[in-house]
Amino acid sequence: MTVTIPDDLAEASGGRIVLVVMDGLGGLPDPSTGKTELESAVVPNLNRIAANAALGLHQPVAPGVTPGSGPGHLGLFGYDPVRWNIGRGVLSALGVGFDLRDGDLATRLNFATVDAEGRVTDRRAGRPSDDENKRLVAKLRENVKAPKDAELFFESEKEHRAVMILRGADLRAELEDTDPQETGVPPLPVKPTTPDARASAELMQRVLDAGREALRDEPKANALLARGFAAYGRYPTMQERFKLKCLALAKYPMYRGVARLVGMDAQHTPESDEQAVDLLERNFTNYDFHFIHFKAVDSRGEDGDFGAKVKAVEACDPLIGRIEALNPDVLIVTGDHSTPSRLRAHSWHPVPVLIRSPWVRPSPGQTFGERPCMQGELGIFPTADLMSLALAHAGRLGKFGA
Amino acid sequence: MTVTIPDDLAEASGGRIVLVVMDGLGGLPDPSTGKTELESAVVPNLNRIAANAALGLHQPVAPGVTPGSGPGHLGLFGYDPVRWNIGRGVLSALGVGFDLRDGDLATRLNFATVDAEGRVTDRRAGRPSDDENKRLVAKLRENVKAPKDAELFFESEKEHRAVMILRGADLRAELEDTDPQETGVPPLPVKPTTPDARASAELMQRVLDAGREALRDEPKANALLARGFAAYGRYPTMQERFKLKCLALAKYPMYRGVARLVGMDAQHTPESDEQAVDLLERNFTNYDFHFIHFKAVDSRGEDGDFGAKVKAVEACDPLIGRIEALNPDVLIVTGDHSTPSRLRAHSWHPVPVLIRSPWVRPSPGQTFGERPCMQGELGIFPTADLMSLALAHAGRLGKFGA
Repeated sequence: MTVTIPDDLAEASGGRIVLVVMDGLGGLPDPSTGKTELESAVVPNLNRIAANAALGLHQPVAPGVTPGSGPGHLGLFGYDPVRWNIGRGVLSALGVGFDLRDGDLATRLNFATVDAEGRVTDRRAGRPSDDENKRLVAKLRENVKAPKDAELFFESEKEHRAVMILRGADLRAELEDTDPQETGVPPLPVKPTTPDARASAELMQRVLDAGREALRDEPKANALLARGFAAYGRYPTMQERFKLKCLALAKYPMYRGVARLVGMDAQHTPESDEQAVDLLERNFTNYDFHFIHFKAVDSRGEDGDFGAKVKAVEACDPLIGRIEALNPDVLIVTGDHSTPSRLRAHSWHPVPVLIRSPWVRPSPGQTFGERPCMQGELGIFPTADLMSLALAHAGRLGKFGA
Repeated sequence: MTVTIPDDLAEASGGRIVLVVMDGLGGLPDPSTGKTELESAVVPNLNRIAANAALGLHQPVAPGVTPGSGPGHLGLFGYDPVRWNIGRGVLSALGVGFDLRDGDLATRLNFATVDAEGRVTDRRAGRPSDDENKRLVAKLRENVKAPKDAELFFESEKEHRAVMILRGADLRAELEDTDPQETGVPPLPVKPTTPDARASAELMQRVLDAGREALRDEPKANALLARGFAAYGRYPTMQERFKLKCLALAKYPMYRGVARLVGMDAQHTPESDEQAVDLLERNFTNYDFHFIHFKAVDSRGEDGDFGAKVKAVEACDPLIGRIEALNPDVLIVTGDHSTPSRLRAHSWHPVPVLIRSPWVRPSPGQTFGERPCMQGELGIFPTADLMSLALAHAGRLGKFGA
């Protein structure tokens, strides 16, 4: 008798949970002040909430490991990101808002340039504009036929990147990239990595050959390189696992895609963070769990602009005040990973988190920041355990054993 | 698509890492001052480095578990010591500097005394001197023939201990010790614990009988007891796993042996800690990863001499200053386990660690000691995760997922 935690302990009734994700929240100190972006921000609402909240740091994947956005969010939703690893092709399809179905085989395509001998001269086809990308994708849609008994979809991503989805019986994803990762050599053939994938490899090769043929007269984007073949397998939903009816409010399609992957309702497309909070207010009592996503904190971190990241954090503060006013039983504020502006990129550093609930052990005078979170009651814990804590604080997690 | 962390994320280029191991660094407070050995030491270099470093405690095996030197170091090198458990015979062979090959069967031998009826009267043969030990080993070498198609090696360890290595086709290590662990009974026969090991058991019995015969006229050391049969299997190297070219600088053969086990270059034999640092300076740019081992801290802990352990820590401080001056991208200072002088032995207590890097979240005024490390940003983490952190800080660990 094995008990899966928290799934087997989750109860169907209990309090309402709001998860606020400030993307890339964690940071590193500015050497001149010794304070991180979050610690530098003027955030009266966050600090008032933190004073009576449980604080800690969560670790998205493992010590030292920098997560992508997909794994970062999966962890927050209670899905161990290593066990539930999302392939690149699937993540790209989610990112463009494509509605994947069980068994779909998705792959990322790069437009590339090859010379007369078929050797790659530019792996990114001179980085076409997004409009140019759309034109090329339309050409593929028009000229490449789906294989018998299958459906084929091409979707524009941006610059040199597109996504291809093949839908049909019994497709296998155990295929090697055709991107040679260098110039001066031809694209690689689609090679199966297991004998079972041989038929899928041949099918995929024919599709890629037809795509190449369709692009042959293009001056730059006259070839395709495929990367990250990935099969979409249905994930158990948060409703099934945690008995939660979930709403996702995110401006960007990637985050709605990951939310949909775990069964959240992601029908709304807020056009701004303010509108996302409007939608939360309007739908508050219709769901058990709300995920609301604020992107700018991460973007300013990736820009490498410490001051702008501070301002992006500050811009979230009144929104969080509005969410607090709804008085959810459990309010969680955190990030999906760290994006220190000094690194201009995602990083491995654990992410500050607060849980507002009556059932906490706050320390006097604590505020919301990396260092106070280090000393907080939650310690450093795996991100995927955050959902158990959320359920527990909401009175939604039963006792283990008698 | 499974991802092994950190192996599959390791990148071939990035910063240089130095790992300084003060053996047995962790300690316990002196009841009269409330300070541990490390906290009592005057270590201006270490404290200056710690002020801007990441601090934490690492746990070598599991809570409450005291590690031997082999597991302690394997963990530091990124090898889970439970998964990569080294058998006693192999560790002994490494300890005497024996160059093990794949498939070698190593076992520890104790010289013992038996009476006329063959019953053990002293399991340690009156603890012979090291010179006497060497004479006995020479006698074994001269008189015990290797079995057909095999090679046989005897190596002196110290006092009553020696190592025997059998090299030949298809040897199995699933053999029970012949040491009965008590006196008044004869040595046990070599018993296989699996049917596959039966032939190896018979072979080993003949070798031990021949050894016994060679020693029959000895007044004290007239018998052999075998313990810890262990097969040496090739470990994946740090180069293979982490894409690091590694140099080991350790005065004692055991530590060079464990380093060689994971593929480090351990060709140098420094005669002092100073000379180890000389060699590090001279070879600094030729390697990605340097492991430098200082033994005295552990030895003084095992002596039970608190003051001497404090002095041993202090003696390392200027050496660490010289290493810092080389400005490695990542400098780690730690121990392989704790050796509190009040316990006069290795212990289970987590071990203080500092990581010097620009990408850290130090707390104001922090110094290097067990208590500041408890409050540090790294928390308490498994020793085997230290390598992931080292790689991350060196910019050598790719992102997990897109």
